[in-house]
Amino acid sequence: MIDMSPCETLSLLHNSRVGRIAFVDASKRPYTIPLRFVYHNDTIYVRLAFDGRKQDALEHSRRVCFEADECSDDFSHYASIIAEGTLFDVSNDEEKRDALLAMNLKYERLANLPHPGPNPVIQGVALRKIVIEKISGRKREPDPPATPRRLGRSAMAGK
Amino acid sequence: MIDMSPCETLSLLHNSRVGRIAFVDASKRPYTIPLRFVYHNDTIYVRLAFDGRKQDALEHSRRVCFEADECSDDFSHYASIIAEGTLFDVSNDEEKRDALLAMNLKYERLANLPHPGPNPVIQGVALRKIVIEKISGRKREPDPPATPRRLGRSAMAGK
Repeated sequence: MIDMSPCETLSLLHNSRVGRIAFVDASKRPYTIPLRFVYHNDTIYVRLAFDGRKQDALEHSRRVCFEADECSDDFSHYASIIAEGTLFDVSNDEEKRDALLAMNLKYERLANLPHPGPNPVIQGVALRKIVIEKISGRKREPDPPATPRRLGRSAMAGK
Repeated sequence: MIDMSPCETLSLLHNSRVGRIAFVDASKRPYTIPLRFVYHNDTIYVRLAFDGRKQDALEHSRRVCFEADECSDDFSHYASIIAEGTLFDVSNDEEKRDALLAMNLKYERLANLPHPGPNPVIQGVALRKIVIEKISGRKREPDPPATPRRLGRSAMAGK
Protein backbone atom coordinates (compact mmCIF):
# COMPACT_ATOMS: atom_id res chain seq x y z
CA MET A 1 0.00 0.00 0.00
CA ILE A 2 1.23 3.49 -0.82
CA ASP A 3 0.06 6.98 0.07
CA MET A 4 -2.49 8.62 -2.20
CA SER A 5 -1.86 12.07 -3.65
CA PRO A 6 -4.12 14.94 -2.50
CA CYS A 7 -5.80 14.79 -5.92
CA GLU A 8 -6.53 11.06 -5.59
CA THR A 9 -7.85 11.57 -2.05
CA LEU A 10 -10.17 14.29 -3.32
CA SER A 11 -11.36 12.12 -6.18
CA LEU A 12 -12.22 9.26 -3.82
CA LEU A 13 -14.14 11.63 -1.53
CA HIS A 14 -16.09 13.04 -4.47
CA ASN A 15 -16.95 9.65 -5.93
CA SER A 16 -17.65 7.42 -2.91
CA ARG A 17 -21.35 6.81 -2.37
CA VAL A 18 -21.04 5.68 1.23
CA GLY A 19 -18.83 6.70 4.13
CA ARG A 20 -18.68 5.18 7.61
CA ILE A 21 -18.45 7.13 10.81
CA ALA A 22 -17.12 5.58 14.00
CA PHE A 23 -17.87 6.82 17.52
CA VAL A 24 -17.02 5.72 21.01
CA ASP A 25 -20.12 5.15 23.10
CA ALA A 26 -20.61 5.84 26.80
CA SER A 27 -19.52 2.25 27.61
CA LYS A 28 -16.21 2.98 25.80
CA ARG A 29 -17.19 0.66 22.98
CA PRO A 30 -16.70 1.44 19.29
CA TYR A 31 -19.81 1.92 17.20
CA THR A 32 -19.88 2.55 13.46
CA ILE A 33 -22.57 3.36 10.93
CA PRO A 34 -22.62 3.90 7.17
CA LEU A 35 -24.06 7.08 5.74
CA ARG A 36 -24.14 9.43 2.76
CA PHE A 37 -21.76 12.36 2.82
CA VAL A 38 -20.31 15.18 0.82
CA TYR A 39 -16.83 16.63 1.03
CA HIS A 40 -17.28 20.37 0.63
CA ASN A 41 -15.11 23.32 1.69
CA ASP A 42 -12.55 20.96 3.27
CA THR A 43 -15.28 19.57 5.52
CA ILE A 44 -17.28 16.33 5.53
CA TYR A 45 -21.02 16.96 5.80
CA VAL A 46 -23.36 14.14 6.79
CA ARG A 47 -27.07 13.78 7.35
CA LEU A 48 -27.29 12.19 10.75
CA ALA A 49 -30.35 12.11 12.98
CA PHE A 50 -29.67 12.20 16.69
CA ASP A 51 -31.57 9.23 17.99
CA GLY A 52 -31.02 5.91 19.68
CA ARG A 53 -27.50 4.70 20.19
CA LYS A 54 -25.91 7.37 17.97
CA GLN A 55 -27.30 10.03 20.25
CA ASP A 56 -25.99 8.28 23.37
CA ALA A 57 -22.56 7.93 21.77
CA LEU A 58 -22.39 11.53 20.58
CA GLU A 59 -23.52 12.89 23.92
CA HIS A 60 -20.54 11.02 25.35
CA SER A 61 -18.02 12.25 22.76
CA ARG A 62 -18.07 14.17 19.48
CA ARG A 63 -14.75 12.68 18.45
CA VAL A 64 -15.21 10.64 15.24
CA CYS A 65 -13.26 8.66 12.67
CA PHE A 66 -14.57 8.64 9.10
CA GLU A 67 -13.75 6.11 6.39
CA ALA A 68 -14.50 5.75 2.66
CA ASP A 69 -13.05 3.28 0.17
CA GLU A 70 -13.19 1.93 -3.37
CA CYS A 71 -12.02 -1.29 -4.98
CA SER A 72 -12.18 -3.05 -8.31
CA ASP A 73 -13.95 -6.42 -8.59
CA ASP A 74 -10.68 -8.34 -8.53
CA PHE A 75 -9.10 -6.09 -5.86
CA SER A 76 -6.26 -5.12 -8.20
CA HIS A 77 -7.17 -1.49 -7.44
CA TYR A 78 -7.98 -0.66 -3.87
CA ALA A 79 -7.97 2.68 -2.06
CA SER A 80 -9.30 4.14 1.17
CA ILE A 81 -9.25 7.37 3.13
CA ILE A 82 -9.44 7.86 6.87
CA ALA A 83 -10.37 11.25 8.36
CA GLU A 84 -10.33 12.08 12.03
CA GLY A 85 -12.00 15.02 13.64
CA THR A 86 -14.91 16.36 15.63
CA LEU A 87 -18.60 16.32 14.77
CA PHE A 88 -20.57 19.55 14.99
CA ASP A 89 -24.21 20.40 14.28
CA VAL A 90 -24.82 22.73 11.35
CA SER A 91 -27.38 25.32 12.41
CA ASN A 92 -26.50 28.26 10.17
CA ASP A 93 -29.10 28.28 7.39
CA GLU A 94 -26.73 29.57 4.73
CA GLU A 95 -24.11 26.92 5.46
CA LYS A 96 -26.81 24.27 5.63
CA ARG A 97 -28.30 25.23 2.27
CA ASP A 98 -24.87 25.37 0.64
CA ALA A 99 -23.82 21.96 1.99
CA LEU A 100 -27.14 20.27 1.16
CA LEU A 101 -26.98 21.64 -2.36
CA ALA A 102 -23.46 20.21 -2.70
CA MET A 103 -24.71 16.88 -1.36
CA ASN A 104 -27.67 16.77 -3.74
CA LEU A 105 -25.41 17.64 -6.67
CA LYS A 106 -22.99 14.87 -5.73
CA TYR A 107 -25.63 12.15 -5.53
CA GLU A 108 -27.49 13.27 -8.63
CA ARG A 109 -24.18 13.23 -10.50
CA LEU A 110 -23.32 9.74 -9.20
CA ALA A 111 -26.79 8.45 -10.13
CA ASN A 112 -26.62 10.24 -13.49
CA LEU A 113 -29.88 12.08 -12.79
CA PRO A 114 -30.85 15.64 -13.74
CA HIS A 115 -29.64 18.64 -11.75
CA PRO A 116 -31.67 18.79 -8.50
CA GLY A 117 -32.18 22.56 -8.56
CA PRO A 118 -30.67 25.32 -6.41
CA ASN A 119 -33.01 25.25 -3.39
CA PRO A 120 -32.71 22.16 -1.23
CA VAL A 121 -35.16 21.69 1.64
CA ILE A 122 -33.30 22.59 4.81
CA GLN A 123 -36.06 22.69 7.41
CA GLY A 124 -35.92 19.69 9.71
CA VAL A 125 -32.81 18.25 8.05
CA ALA A 126 -30.34 16.98 10.67
CA LEU A 127 -27.08 18.09 9.09
CA ARG A 128 -23.74 17.67 10.87
CA LYS A 129 -20.18 18.31 9.82
CA ILE A 130 -16.88 16.70 10.60
CA VAL A 131 -14.21 19.32 11.13
CA ILE A 132 -11.19 17.39 9.96
CA GLU A 133 -7.97 17.39 11.92
CA LYS A 134 -6.19 14.70 9.97
CA ILE A 135 -6.89 12.94 6.70
CA SER A 136 -4.89 10.25 4.95
CA GLY A 137 -5.36 8.02 1.93
CA ARG A 138 -3.72 4.72 1.05
CA LYS A 139 -3.99 2.74 -2.16
CA ARG A 140 -2.81 -0.36 -3.93
CA GLU A 141 -2.44 -0.28 -7.68
CA PRO A 142 -2.34 -3.24 -10.08
CA ASP A 143 1.07 -4.86 -10.49
CA PRO A 144 2.72 -3.97 -13.79
CA PRO A 145 2.37 -6.76 -16.37
CA ALA A 146 5.06 -9.44 -16.03
CA THR A 147 5.74 -9.56 -19.76
CA PRO A 148 5.47 -6.48 -21.97
CA ARG A 149 2.59 -6.80 -24.39
CA ARG A 150 3.89 -4.32 -26.91
CA LEU A 151 7.27 -2.91 -27.73
CA GLY A 152 6.05 0.60 -26.91
CA ARG A 153 5.01 -0.43 -23.41
CA SER A 154 8.28 -2.27 -22.90
CA ALA A 155 10.26 0.83 -23.77
CA MET A 156 8.12 2.89 -21.37
CA ALA A 157 8.49 0.37 -18.57
CA GLY A 158 12.22 0.84 -18.49
CA LYS A 159 11.98 4.55 -17.79
CA MET B 1 -35.13 1.54 6.74
CA ILE B 2 -36.33 -1.91 7.72
CA ASP B 3 -34.67 -4.94 9.29
CA MET B 4 -33.04 -7.45 6.97
CA SER B 5 -33.91 -11.13 7.18
CA PRO B 6 -31.19 -13.57 8.33
CA CYS B 7 -30.92 -14.76 4.72
CA GLU B 8 -30.40 -11.21 3.42
CA THR B 9 -27.82 -10.53 6.13
CA LEU B 10 -25.94 -13.69 5.15
CA SER B 11 -26.06 -12.74 1.48
CA LEU B 12 -24.58 -9.31 2.18
CA LEU B 13 -21.78 -10.86 4.27
CA HIS B 14 -20.98 -13.33 1.51
CA ASN B 15 -20.98 -10.74 -1.25
CA SER B 16 -19.34 -7.67 0.29
CA ARG B 17 -15.76 -7.15 -0.82
CA VAL B 18 -14.79 -4.81 1.98
CA GLY B 19 -15.68 -4.59 5.65
CA ARG B 20 -14.63 -1.93 8.15
CA ILE B 21 -13.52 -2.61 11.66
CA ALA B 22 -13.69 0.08 14.36
CA PHE B 23 -11.60 0.08 17.53
CA VAL B 24 -11.16 2.41 20.47
CA ASP B 25 -7.55 3.46 20.90
CA ALA B 26 -5.66 4.09 24.13
CA SER B 27 -6.63 7.80 23.98
CA LYS B 28 -10.32 6.70 23.91
CA ARG B 29 -10.62 7.81 20.32
CA PRO B 30 -12.39 5.83 17.59
CA TYR B 31 -10.27 4.42 14.82
CA THR B 32 -11.54 2.50 11.80
CA ILE B 33 -9.93 0.66 8.91
CA PRO B 34 -11.25 -1.17 5.85
CA LEU B 35 -10.22 -4.75 5.21
CA ARG B 36 -11.09 -7.99 3.45
CA PHE B 37 -13.06 -10.53 5.42
CA VAL B 38 -14.96 -13.78 5.24
CA TYR B 39 -18.00 -14.82 7.24
CA HIS B 40 -17.47 -18.47 8.04
CA ASN B 41 -18.88 -20.68 10.80
CA ASP B 42 -20.82 -17.74 12.26
CA THR B 43 -17.54 -15.84 12.70
CA ILE B 44 -15.92 -12.97 10.82
CA TYR B 45 -12.31 -13.73 9.88
CA VAL B 46 -9.98 -10.91 8.87
CA ARG B 47 -6.35 -10.63 7.83
CA LEU B 48 -5.00 -7.97 10.12
CA ALA B 49 -1.35 -7.34 10.88
CA PHE B 50 -0.60 -6.04 14.33
CA ASP B 51 1.42 -2.94 13.69
CA GLY B 52 1.31 0.80 14.16
CA ARG B 53 -1.84 2.35 15.49
CA LYS B 54 -3.94 -0.82 15.12
CA GLN B 55 -1.63 -2.59 17.51
CA ASP B 56 -1.80 0.23 20.05
CA ALA B 57 -5.59 0.23 19.84
CA LEU B 58 -5.93 -3.53 20.15
CA GLU B 59 -3.56 -3.70 23.07
CA HIS B 60 -5.92 -1.25 24.74
CA SER B 61 -9.12 -3.13 23.90
CA ARG B 62 -10.17 -6.08 21.74
CA ARG B 63 -13.72 -4.82 21.56
CA VAL B 64 -14.63 -4.08 17.92
CA CYS B 65 -17.53 -3.01 15.74
CA PHE B 66 -17.64 -4.34 12.18
CA GLU B 67 -19.59 -2.88 9.26
CA ALA B 68 -20.31 -3.91 5.66
CA ASP B 69 -22.75 -2.38 3.19
CA GLU B 70 -24.02 -2.38 -0.38
CA CYS B 71 -25.93 0.13 -2.47
CA SER B 72 -27.14 0.59 -6.00
CA ASP B 73 -25.86 3.51 -8.09
CA ASP B 74 -28.99 5.57 -7.51
CA PHE B 75 -29.31 4.53 -3.83
CA SER B 76 -32.75 2.98 -4.44
CA HIS B 77 -31.36 -0.19 -2.84
CA TYR B 78 -29.22 0.22 0.23
CA ALA B 79 -28.32 -2.25 2.95
CA SER B 80 -25.80 -2.57 5.75
CA ILE B 81 -24.88 -4.88 8.58
CA ILE B 82 -23.27 -4.02 11.90
CA ALA B 83 -21.63 -6.73 14.03
CA GLU B 84 -20.24 -6.21 17.49
CA GLY B 85 -17.89 -8.51 19.30
CA THR B 86 -14.36 -9.26 20.38
CA LEU B 87 -11.27 -9.78 18.26
CA PHE B 88 -9.14 -12.87 18.85
CA ASP B 89 -5.98 -14.16 17.20
CA VAL B 90 -6.33 -17.41 15.27
CA SER B 91 -3.39 -19.62 16.16
CA ASN B 92 -4.83 -23.10 15.60
CA ASP B 93 -3.45 -24.30 12.24
CA GLU B 94 -6.55 -26.27 11.30
CA GLU B 95 -8.91 -23.35 11.96
CA LYS B 96 -6.51 -21.01 10.16
CA ARG B 97 -6.32 -23.21 7.07
CA ASP B 98 -10.09 -23.66 7.00
CA ALA B 99 -10.81 -19.93 7.34
CA LEU B 100 -8.16 -18.88 4.80
CA LEU B 101 -9.53 -21.39 2.31
CA ALA B 102 -13.01 -19.93 2.83
CA MET B 103 -11.58 -16.43 2.34
CA ASN B 104 -9.73 -17.40 -0.83
CA LEU B 105 -12.86 -19.07 -2.21
CA LYS B 106 -14.94 -15.97 -1.47
CA TYR B 107 -12.61 -13.56 -3.25
CA GLU B 108 -11.98 -15.83 -6.21
CA ARG B 109 -15.74 -16.20 -6.60
CA LEU B 110 -16.30 -12.43 -6.41
CA ALA B 111 -13.53 -11.81 -8.95
CA ASN B 112 -14.81 -14.67 -11.14
CA LEU B 113 -11.40 -16.36 -11.09
CA PRO B 114 -10.61 -20.09 -11.00
CA HIS B 115 -10.80 -22.11 -7.80
CA PRO B 116 -7.70 -21.25 -5.71
CA GLY B 117 -7.01 -24.83 -4.62
CA PRO B 118 -7.34 -26.54 -1.25
CA ASN B 119 -4.06 -25.58 0.44
CA PRO B 120 -3.74 -21.91 1.34
CA VAL B 121 -0.44 -20.64 2.72
CA ILE B 122 -0.93 -20.22 6.46
CA GLN B 123 2.61 -19.57 7.70
CA GLY B 124 3.11 -15.96 8.66
CA VAL B 125 -0.49 -14.98 7.90
CA ALA B 126 -1.88 -12.69 10.60
CA LEU B 127 -5.41 -14.05 10.85
CA ARG B 128 -7.86 -12.79 13.48
CA LYS B 129 -11.51 -13.50 14.12
CA ILE B 130 -14.38 -11.48 15.46
CA VAL B 131 -16.48 -13.57 17.82
CA ILE B 132 -19.85 -11.95 17.25
CA GLU B 133 -22.11 -11.04 20.15
CA LYS B 134 -24.67 -9.10 18.18
CA ILE B 135 -25.35 -8.65 14.50
CA SER B 136 -28.05 -6.63 12.79
CA GLY B 137 -28.88 -5.63 9.23
CA ARG B 138 -30.98 -2.76 7.91
CA LYS B 139 -32.05 -2.03 4.37
CA ARG B 140 -34.02 0.29 2.18
CA GLU B 141 -35.73 -1.10 -0.89
CA PRO B 142 -36.93 0.78 -3.97
CA ASP B 143 -40.42 2.26 -3.71
CA PRO B 144 -43.01 0.21 -5.63
CA PRO B 145 -43.77 1.72 -9.05
CA ALA B 146 -46.50 4.36 -8.93
CA THR B 147 -48.26 2.97 -11.99
CA PRO B 148 -48.19 -0.74 -12.89
CA ARG B 149 -46.26 -1.27 -16.08
CA ARG B 150 -47.84 -4.58 -16.99
CA LEU B 151 -50.99 -6.38 -15.99
CA GLY B 152 -48.98 -9.31 -14.65
CA ARG B 153 -46.93 -7.09 -12.34
CA SER B 154 -50.04 -5.28 -11.18
CA ALA B 155 -51.70 -8.56 -10.24
CA MET B 156 -48.57 -9.64 -8.33
CA ALA B 157 -48.30 -6.31 -6.50
CA GLY B 158 -51.72 -6.80 -4.95
CA LYS B 159 -50.72 -10.08 -3.25
